[in-house]
Amino acid sequence: MREPVAITGLGTYLPRLMHDNQTLPPLDEPATAEEIARIGVMRRGWAGDGEGIAEMAAQAAARALERAGTRAAELDAVILSNWTQRRFIPEFAPRLLELLGASRAFGFDICCACAGLLYGVGLASELLQQPRYTRALVVASETTSQRARPGSKGTLILGDGAGAFVLERGERAGAGRLIDYELATAGEHHAIMDISPEGWVRTHIEQRALAELASRTIAEVSGRVLARSGVTLADVRWVIPHSGTAGVQAAIARRLELPAGRILTNFADVGNVSSASIPVALEHFQRAGQVRPGDLVLSAAVGTGWYAAAALYTV
Amino acid sequence: MREPVAITGLGTYLPRLMHDNQTLPPLDEPATAEEIARIGVMRRGWAGDGEGIAEMAAQAAARALERAGTRAAELDAVILSNWTQRRFIPEFAPRLLELLGASRAFGFDICCACAGLLYGVGLASELLQQPRYTRALVVASETTSQRARPGSKGTLILGDGAGAFVLERGERAGAGRLIDYELATAGEHHAIMDISPEGWVRTHIEQRALAELASRTIAEVSGRVLARSGVTLADVRWVIPHSGTAGVQAAIARRLELPAGRILTNFADVGNVSSASIPVALEHFQRAGQVRPGDLVLSAAVGTGWYAAAALYTV
Repeated sequence: MREPVAITGLGTYLPRLMHDNQTLPPLDEPATAEEIARIGVMRRGWAGDGEGIAEMAAQAAARALERAGTRAAELDAVILSNWTQRRFIPEFAPRLLELLGASRAFGFDICCACAGLLYGVGLASELLQQPRYTRALVVASETTSQRARPGSKGTLILGDGAGAFVLERGERAGAGRLIDYELATAGEHHAIMDISPEGWVRTHIEQRALAELASRTIAEVSGRVLARSGVTLADVRWVIPHSGTAGVQAAIARRLELPAGRILTNFADVGNVSSASIPVALEHFQRAGQVRPGDLVLSAAVGTGWYAAAALYTV
Repeated sequence: MREPVAITGLGTYLPRLMHDNQTLPPLDEPATAEEIARIGVMRRGWAGDGEGIAEMAAQAAARALERAGTRAAELDAVILSNWTQRRFIPEFAPRLLELLGASRAFGFDICCACAGLLYGVGLASELLQQPRYTRALVVASETTSQRARPGSKGTLILGDGAGAFVLERGERAGAGRLIDYELATAGEHHAIMDISPEGWVRTHIEQRALAELASRTIAEVSGRVLARSGVTLADVRWVIPHSGTAGVQAAIARRLELPAGRILTNFADVGNVSSASIPVALEHFQRAGQVRPGDLVLSAAVGTGWYAAAALYTV
């Protein structure tokens, strides 16, 4: 008998410095108005002093904990998703535990590129089947802007930010619920993207092929989680995917055969914040009143690995 | 109702090049015979060509799968523990999936320093409660030697290697069984050790204080897992800890009040192989005929983080 998993808190954090297209440092080759429209990002955050991975994660987590009505000291497990800063040991979760005062929790980092938050949600939902764990925090915190070559058009797209979910075992009146999740990793595609020695994103296949692979993978993991749950896309109120570029987003809409209005992204306002994008978009559309309590949402993400994940949940 | 988790396969890999104290490149200050005896390591491996994190992991995993009588394509989840090599994306698990032909599994990396393998075992045991997952592979693969400053006495201690467990849901006649595990992370100690900009281990507290903290932490997580399982140390046939140094090992023996003969380590033969140390030691003493089928074993580890973990199992 599986225990239900409630989604009791959501919190996000964006950097103090949000660059619009005018304040962004000059590109090697200025983007034309047409290129800017096609890229589709108008603002993106650049993390500054005191806005490291653990610090942004702590800000988003504190908000999620407050909404959940839970103290950090009551958490049993903390999973931190980040790929944009690397260090040997320790990674960032121990510092996050200290910042939050999560004195009882164990914590660890995962790095599944843009799919990291949903990998964390899947793992947390299994940890919460363990009777001695009641509350888990899953946070994504990324400084994606630092993985774009300065002066490249990638700086138009990549932004920084953090987003967090509090998950709890059991039903909670008025809270969301995780219905099911799906994880997949296609090792045969491990070399299609990587990071240069300078720390900048490189893509080794054509953008069109990448968008097609991304949208096909998202459709696959989404299809599996929907089929298992006995629902169809028509039953889903909103699709909130990670979409790394406007091209990927359009390919997802085509592949899922969904009207654009059912797919929610605030990519234009925050850029590609990688694994933080799903909570950041969800909170944006909750605040706007578009996503309402009880709505059925499908989220899916793919990332360089080739990692893929989907989650079906109510909010 | 929790499902039992069987330990059906164990496999390890050591580099082709095993340095003894004569072949090791010269130290800045030669070690005296007394120092060498106190350090207690006679051989340690240095990974060479074709012995990267994913490649050593694949060698250890292939042996574990063979013993489990399982094909890689039947795996549902793969968890790779490594902290000694860092990259942005992808990490190493996708390449490991490809090397193994683990076509159905999802996979991800964890980096919990020397405790990584036991974190992986804990996570895998929870994933195996999920009805759609039947078989998981947990592998640790470390090139620890590369985290010692060349010419430092650390090069006497740190060695490379990999070790893997196959875990399966359900009881398996003749196989081991995971009885319980415990994970803990003490964020307040996150700064006591780290890695220099050159990539070398640095310790910011005294060795004696570190050994005391390590042994106390190991006693705590071990005590919790034993108490929950209703057994005492007297019931445990063997303790196979991760022991980063001979000093830590002696402190563990004192703290647990165990005769030295009940604590098994092959540290002298392989050095500190970090998160790979527990499977590497277990296989060593199984081959030697000392650890026998059905024996009750307690393993525990701590690592820079401050990560701690313990597992109680039969072999």
